[in-house]
Amino acid sequence: MIVVVCLNPALDITHRVTTVNWGGVNRPAAVHARPGGKGVNVARTLQALGADPLLTGLAGGVTGAGIEAALGRLGVPTAFIPIGAETRRTFTVVDGEGTVTAFNEAGPEVSEREFTEFRGQYGEALAGASAVVLSGSLPPGLAAGTYAALIETATARGVPVVLDTHGEALLRGAAAGPAIVKPNLEELANLTGRRLSTPDGPDLTAVTAAADQLRASGARAVVASLGSAGLLATTGDGRWLARPAAVAGNPTGAGDAVVAALAHGLVLGRPWDERLRHAAALGAATVAAPVAGEFSDADYAGALSATALHRDEVG
Amino acid sequence: MIVVVCLNPALDITHRVTTVNWGGVNRPAAVHARPGGKGVNVARTLQALGADPLLTGLAGGVTGAGIEAALGRLGVPTAFIPIGAETRRTFTVVDGEGTVTAFNEAGPEVSEREFTEFRGQYGEALAGASAVVLSGSLPPGLAAGTYAALIETATARGVPVVLDTHGEALLRGAAAGPAIVKPNLEELANLTGRRLSTPDGPDLTAVTAAADQLRASGARAVVASLGSAGLLATTGDGRWLARPAAVAGNPTGAGDAVVAALAHGLVLGRPWDERLRHAAALGAATVAAPVAGEFSDADYAGALSATALHRDEVG
Repeated sequence: MIVVVCLNPALDITHRVTTVNWGGVNRPAAVHARPGGKGVNVARTLQALGADPLLTGLAGGVTGAGIEAALGRLGVPTAFIPIGAETRRTFTVVDGEGTVTAFNEAGPEVSEREFTEFRGQYGEALAGASAVVLSGSLPPGLAAGTYAALIETATARGVPVVLDTHGEALLRGAAAGPAIVKPNLEELANLTGRRLSTPDGPDLTAVTAAADQLRASGARAVVASLGSAGLLATTGDGRWLARPAAVAGNPTGAGDAVVAALAHGLVLGRPWDERLRHAAALGAATVAAPVAGEFSDADYAGALSATALHRDEVG
Repeated sequence: MIVVVCLNPALDITHRVTTVNWGGVNRPAAVHARPGGKGVNVARTLQALGADPLLTGLAGGVTGAGIEAALGRLGVPTAFIPIGAETRRTFTVVDGEGTVTAFNEAGPEVSEREFTEFRGQYGEALAGASAVVLSGSLPPGLAAGTYAALIETATARGVPVVLDTHGEALLRGAAAGPAIVKPNLEELANLTGRRLSTPDGPDLTAVTAAADQLRASGARAVVASLGSAGLLATTGDGRWLARPAAVAGNPTGAGDAVVAALAHGLVLGRPWDERLRHAAALGAATVAAPVAGEFSDADYAGALSATALHRDEVG
């Protein structure tokens, strides 16, 4: 079992309109509502991979209940701790020209008592866990050291952790010694204060230095996701660049697919090169799918053979 | 007990933003979610009046469950029939300059089996009912004669009906002989093909003729709501104009408060002049309140004494 922690899930509502009548009444031609948040996407991907996830975290109000019900219909096992405040919604309007406007509610305020209850359940879940994924933002009321504490608990029990978050929570989480952290280019740049982009794409030398710096802070491996440029990994076994073939589509959720594949590869004991090839390919297959958290087996298989792996050529 | 039928309830979500970043990510400063739909507002007003409502209708999915849960917290008794499709949401963005943009989802598709189940429950509820309110739009899948059929059932059992809807459903409903129909100016104009407005406000002679025409089609009384110009009623006891004092505020839901007061006055056996004075005053008090479906007792009492009643001076 892979325990996936999503402390700040969301109900993602999308309205498609031909043209927005700003200041008027719009009647969307299509409406979609689906459970979201990075941890939710990771769990859905792991479920599709047959990797036995248990999605846990905090969910409140009718929005929280709606997320759990929808995940139940999708076949994803969940064990959210109920909270008093209402889980957040994101509301996205997409017009006929593809302009995307988002209205993202703040997460619910979480009480100390509620988080204590979660920690108790998390501790119990570790007994049957082969890995833990900690993914996404922290809701209001939880300290920046929250992920660090969860990593320490898991590591002390011998359960490896994959961490995907940003800012102070990432910095403190990395120092707690997770097996893998997966920043994207922007998160890595913000964290290390380095300039990582050029007009032609990521500056791989600078990215390598930044990833090495983050790894030196405590993480056992750092996998930076660079969008279409692929994955750059710095590990105890060396450095790799995994570069998938170009894919057109929707990059939302591709990073979550990478995290799912990294956790799956860790549990399967795949060597780093194979682990990264699968992660880069699954990210590419997710870009090709219309919905975040989904992919087709054919796209995944095709992307696997089209992903190039380079060792130690970076940095 | 007053049975209030809301076949197409909604979850009304409002986001307040300072300035909208169109094509970008917005983080609303305030978020409100509350149960809506005209019948919901009527039931909330009746509950506040101490008039013993039972709110029934059709509700589906997690949005429907959310509406029922919120009404439970508000103390409004509900008995919705569950349906398979998801109850609609309305999403409204209000910016710092007061510009209001609405994104209104279509109602859920209702199956024949689900509506048959509702009709069975409705028939049972009539046994303890002193009046029925039928309010709002019909969701997809229900015929325009739906309200007419519900009116015939209630009338055959001696239970008077107040109807507030529009278009073909109003036309056919009126012909089925409800005690009162309450169109607004626009609905009455559309229905009768008459021009009812002038640059100075409603043309009362034309409104009276239109109301008389609608009454002649079968309704025992017609009460037209004319916004700040008040209520124009044509009944078996004569015609009245009830004109409240000018009120600044939010007119959303004022028509629903009028419907609630008309049903309450009907059940209490108030004569038409008193019934209309209360209805016009409650509408005005609702305009003064910030939230649709709510009013303060002080505003209501003040509006009652400030409402002028004119008999037979119209038409």
